[in-house]
Amino acid sequence: MKLAIFGYGNLGRGVECAAKQNPDMELIAVFTRRDPSSVHTLTGVPVYSASDIKSFKDQIDVLIICGGSATDLPALTPVLAEDFHVIDSFDTHANIPTHFSNVDKSAKESGHLALISAGWDPGLFSLNRLYASSVLPHGADYTFWGRGVSQGHSDAIRRIKGVKDARQYTVPIQEALDKVRSGQQPMLSTRQKHLRECYVVAEEGADLDRIENEIKTMPNYFSDYDTTVTFISEEELLRDHKELPHGGFVIRTGKTGVREEHTERIEYSLKLDSNPEFTGSVLVACARAILKMANRGETGCRTVFDIAPADLSPLSRDELLHSML
Amino acid sequence: MKLAIFGYGNLGRGVECAAKQNPDMELIAVFTRRDPSSVHTLTGVPVYSASDIKSFKDQIDVLIICGGSATDLPALTPVLAEDFHVIDSFDTHANIPTHFSNVDKSAKESGHLALISAGWDPGLFSLNRLYASSVLPHGADYTFWGRGVSQGHSDAIRRIKGVKDARQYTVPIQEALDKVRSGQQPMLSTRQKHLRECYVVAEEGADLDRIENEIKTMPNYFSDYDTTVTFISEEELLRDHKELPHGGFVIRTGKTGVREEHTERIEYSLKLDSNPEFTGSVLVACARAILKMANRGETGCRTVFDIAPADLSPLSRDELLHSML
Repeated sequence: MKLAIFGYGNLGRGVECAAKQNPDMELIAVFTRRDPSSVHTLTGVPVYSASDIKSFKDQIDVLIICGGSATDLPALTPVLAEDFHVIDSFDTHANIPTHFSNVDKSAKESGHLALISAGWDPGLFSLNRLYASSVLPHGADYTFWGRGVSQGHSDAIRRIKGVKDARQYTVPIQEALDKVRSGQQPMLSTRQKHLRECYVVAEEGADLDRIENEIKTMPNYFSDYDTTVTFISEEELLRDHKELPHGGFVIRTGKTGVREEHTERIEYSLKLDSNPEFTGSVLVACARAILKMANRGETGCRTVFDIAPADLSPLSRDELLHSML
Repeated sequence: MKLAIFGYGNLGRGVECAAKQNPDMELIAVFTRRDPSSVHTLTGVPVYSASDIKSFKDQIDVLIICGGSATDLPALTPVLAEDFHVIDSFDTHANIPTHFSNVDKSAKESGHLALISAGWDPGLFSLNRLYASSVLPHGADYTFWGRGVSQGHSDAIRRIKGVKDARQYTVPIQEALDKVRSGQQPMLSTRQKHLRECYVVAEEGADLDRIENEIKTMPNYFSDYDTTVTFISEEELLRDHKELPHGGFVIRTGKTGVREEHTERIEYSLKLDSNPEFTGSVLVACARAILKMANRGETGCRTVFDIAPADLSPLSRDELLHSML
């Protein structure tokens, strides 16, 4: 199958790496809104201008759109679904229903199939929330993120005056994890679930106390959390914080039994050295499923909840029965 | 939807408990091969003779067959699929392809839908092997079971002369778990992955050394493992070993990246106080999916790999998008 990538940042490079690992796939093009001659791909895949994409209409089986959820994807995915089967990783949870319905309309009208919100959260974590809550209706589930770099929070710090660069780690609180695992189904506040660790490079002469205070009191991003701020040099940031690790936990505990009660626990976790490469790997597996589903005549918008797991695999039904069931 | 249970042992009772937790379900009958008047259900569901089941042909949406994989299910599932949409938890991994094709033939010919090998392994663990291997093709996965009671191994000990009762726990070896989690992708022998702990009640005057030796040297069951044998009284067995806990881990680690290599880890685990109640909970969620799929006109045999996750949930697509994605 022939894949292409629209948007070549960290996630686009992650998709490129993942495509390389799957012998049934070929990555034939990267589309960029920058000057294509300025973009050099990791594996030598040719780079084209985003404005040329329509001329590739019949050459691409699935187009993977790698853009930001704030402004890029809401605009791009419905438009690109007019000409291609598409996948995105739209992750603004509150806006998913609107994005779904925009993409669904466009894909249905043009006879294409689209998958939105693929990745690990939303994505694999969503699947685990769904499986666990379907199996254990009398229970509660909890999602913890980290330890990992939050790019949104790092960006928010960088927008503060006097900040040259920053890296923010989201850290799940061990005590909360332990309480959840015990099956007590605790009520946990935002502050009880996660810490935020900030590593900040300040500009020369900047007022460090003011920066620290602006971070810790920033609404939505930091004010509801226990936040630590550590000022480091640019060299330290580049040396110790250049990677983009992430991960997290989805844990559901529930009760079963009618006379005696039993506690059951389902736990799913990810520990990722490279968030964009792992997310890219999920998108590429989903591309395989979307092409199979499109070849069966499906059109419109889908989420990971609609993908029968067998469609993600390159193995045949017989191979799956023998080796994996 | 109207459910019925065929076979009322530990698993049948687990299904009964699970059905009770789902307001969209009603359990209307239990069928037994014993004298129905001798069987009393936990929730007052009426009990009928297995031989009367044909007269319920139009009253049951999905029939959950709770029998053993050695002889019951290979005979029962293909026959019951002639008259009902059916689900079983067939778990003899090596014979799944044969069982699948027998059930598929029968269900297709009669226009019914069947799901085989549902539960947690095969079942939820299989799903996790499939998702993880599709996402991380350059990797290795490992399944560990326990700590939990293996009924097959407990039965094998009970067949030894001089043994009155026994309970066998399968225990994953921590060192092996740690090595797998590190991302090293180790080669592990059977003995390196699990221990077997046996608690045995001997008959009065039995030769304990002989019993211990027969257990430890039993081929397939114990000879490839480090096995401990502890003789206890019948009172201790009833007091300390009456529950049927189980659980386990599916862990896959893989590499991503083309220039620099990164390690990614996906881990899924279950910690179950009641293996049969949890397995019953999985079967009941699958029954919901099978009815939705049958109502869309599907026939033949399926496995958990063929179920789109949304079909397991009582929630609508809109509710899933809002609350779970």
